[in-house]
Amino acid sequence: MRSEINEQPAALRRTLDVLLPQTTEIAALAKETRQVLFIARGSSDNAAVYGSYLLQAHSGRLATLASPSIATTYGAEVDLSGVLAVAISQSGKTEEIVETMNWAARCGARTVGITNGAGSPMAEIADVALVTQAGDEFAVPATKTYTAQLAALAVLALGVGADLSEDELRAVPDAIGATLAGPEDSIDAIVESLIGVSGAVVSGRGMAFSTALEAALKLKEACYLHAMGLSYADLLHGPIAVVDGLTPALLVAANSGPTLAGTVALAERVRAAGAPAYAIGGGAALAGACDLSTGIPDLPEWLAPISLIVPAQIITEKLARGLGYDPDAPRSLNKVTQTS
Amino acid sequence: MRSEINEQPAALRRTLDVLLPQTTEIAALAKETRQVLFIARGSSDNAAVYGSYLLQAHSGRLATLASPSIATTYGAEVDLSGVLAVAISQSGKTEEIVETMNWAARCGARTVGITNGAGSPMAEIADVALVTQAGDEFAVPATKTYTAQLAALAVLALGVGADLSEDELRAVPDAIGATLAGPEDSIDAIVESLIGVSGAVVSGRGMAFSTALEAALKLKEACYLHAMGLSYADLLHGPIAVVDGLTPALLVAANSGPTLAGTVALAERVRAAGAPAYAIGGGAALAGACDLSTGIPDLPEWLAPISLIVPAQIITEKLARGLGYDPDAPRSLNKVTQTS
Repeated sequence: MRSEINEQPAALRRTLDVLLPQTTEIAALAKETRQVLFIARGSSDNAAVYGSYLLQAHSGRLATLASPSIATTYGAEVDLSGVLAVAISQSGKTEEIVETMNWAARCGARTVGITNGAGSPMAEIADVALVTQAGDEFAVPATKTYTAQLAALAVLALGVGADLSEDELRAVPDAIGATLAGPEDSIDAIVESLIGVSGAVVSGRGMAFSTALEAALKLKEACYLHAMGLSYADLLHGPIAVVDGLTPALLVAANSGPTLAGTVALAERVRAAGAPAYAIGGGAALAGACDLSTGIPDLPEWLAPISLIVPAQIITEKLARGLGYDPDAPRSLNKVTQTS
Repeated sequence: MRSEINEQPAALRRTLDVLLPQTTEIAALAKETRQVLFIARGSSDNAAVYGSYLLQAHSGRLATLASPSIATTYGAEVDLSGVLAVAISQSGKTEEIVETMNWAARCGARTVGITNGAGSPMAEIADVALVTQAGDEFAVPATKTYTAQLAALAVLALGVGADLSEDELRAVPDAIGATLAGPEDSIDAIVESLIGVSGAVVSGRGMAFSTALEAALKLKEACYLHAMGLSYADLLHGPIAVVDGLTPALLVAANSGPTLAGTVALAERVRAAGAPAYAIGGGAALAGACDLSTGIPDLPEWLAPISLIVPAQIITEKLARGLGYDPDAPRSLNKVTQTS
């Protein structure tokens, strides 16, 4: 897992080199549609959450998440004319997702497949295939294939005409590389404090909500930690009751942007409830409001999720080892997940 | 909380009497649209999940969930022509939800407001207001207002032309009344076994996924339990690693229908992982696959979620008392939640 975390700058560079030339192809397909529907599970579903916020905030398109069981369990016919269905799967082989993509096409949607599996059913069948170049991933918890999916979604946003800069996207691999080359004292302090907790809440808002979900999934998969990924608003709408001295909150935010102030306010609320708050990102403002913090490079808010997940991956890997688990091969899990 | 749980048959009867005559009005508004977008938070968001599966499985319309922060935090303009935006709020006053409903209208959507707040901003502003008749709810955890929202969503489905029977819907209050009048030994056994657990997973699929989310929210709000609501597929896609001897799974399913077999298989998988499995509903098949179980009346699968949540509400209320908490007034929460 750790070596795959470290490969992310190179994986992102290769992925952008291959996918950025496809924006014209994406634009042509997108012109036939008005909105986006994501089809995914697990880490890919968390990537879809990023895609949903990115497209809605920056391209004027409605972009929401499908429920695969409508296709696979209920076999329902749904009117998907005008819909760009974007399926996401690391392997490109998860039957449920490939089946739902095929269902979407039969229901009138145009399809995009985002996968790391060149030659996979998803890559072969989609109207446009965006094949990420993460290389083989061996650890069960997805790391470099996840950030490569986020990069593909950023390319998708550019392709459908979002008001965003390709140059900013091109700068991401180097920024993450610089972080990975730096010291990890602040991460180690957070890991140390997470040993022995009874659970954790992971929260972020807007684009960073995807990071909260993915960080919580990593902690569940590899550390067997009862980690709940919640948006800022959902947390205040009930589950804030679960945080306490033994249930810290891990808060994620870009270093700037419209969700930062709310995340700082949430840190204050968590600490007022008697629970520790740890920050990933959020700059000096969030660090100042939390007990412990680890920084991320200064990227624009729309790209921050690609770098925000990296410290969470490292925390997961180190915490699993600290707890005596093997982060590469968690119990009960296989690499290609088949659900039906 | 307990008295409000018991009021549900009467609250549902009043709600159906008032809302069923509105199907013509709903049909006229829906004719101007092609798909549905739900706007909600907290328990209302869980109701929206039910609405999403119900409409997609039975009315041929795409029905997905909005991200309110796209409106309130990002202030983005999104093309919502052809969209029926359905906002749900118990009080009808939650600013974030009312603001997002207004945003949807400005973006081209037609609007429906589902609320228990007669005269509330939501009821006043929506193109069509479906005002549930649950009566005042005093306990912080929503119970009768939640099932009344589900009933309103069932009426919405009939209004947009779903292939479903009004007579079946009319039979729900009596069926729930019969369950509430019965013995609670099986519920008490589940409560007993949940005292002292370190967390729980609550899982259900399709229509019953909404119940899993709502049951988990209840347990988090009132019992401060680390309860994760997950769909069958999402659970197998990673978090299955968290179940163990101290982390039971609570599985919810209708007594029949296309998701039952998968839920039974999940129970077997959970027990094979060394964790206890407890059933709510799912008939003899699910009961036979679980360590403990409590039944629900025989309702068609599309209506089962209205009755499935009732045993979970009672479990929550009794478990909170068993743990020494006041289920009516959990720490850190207010009845009308304002998020921004």
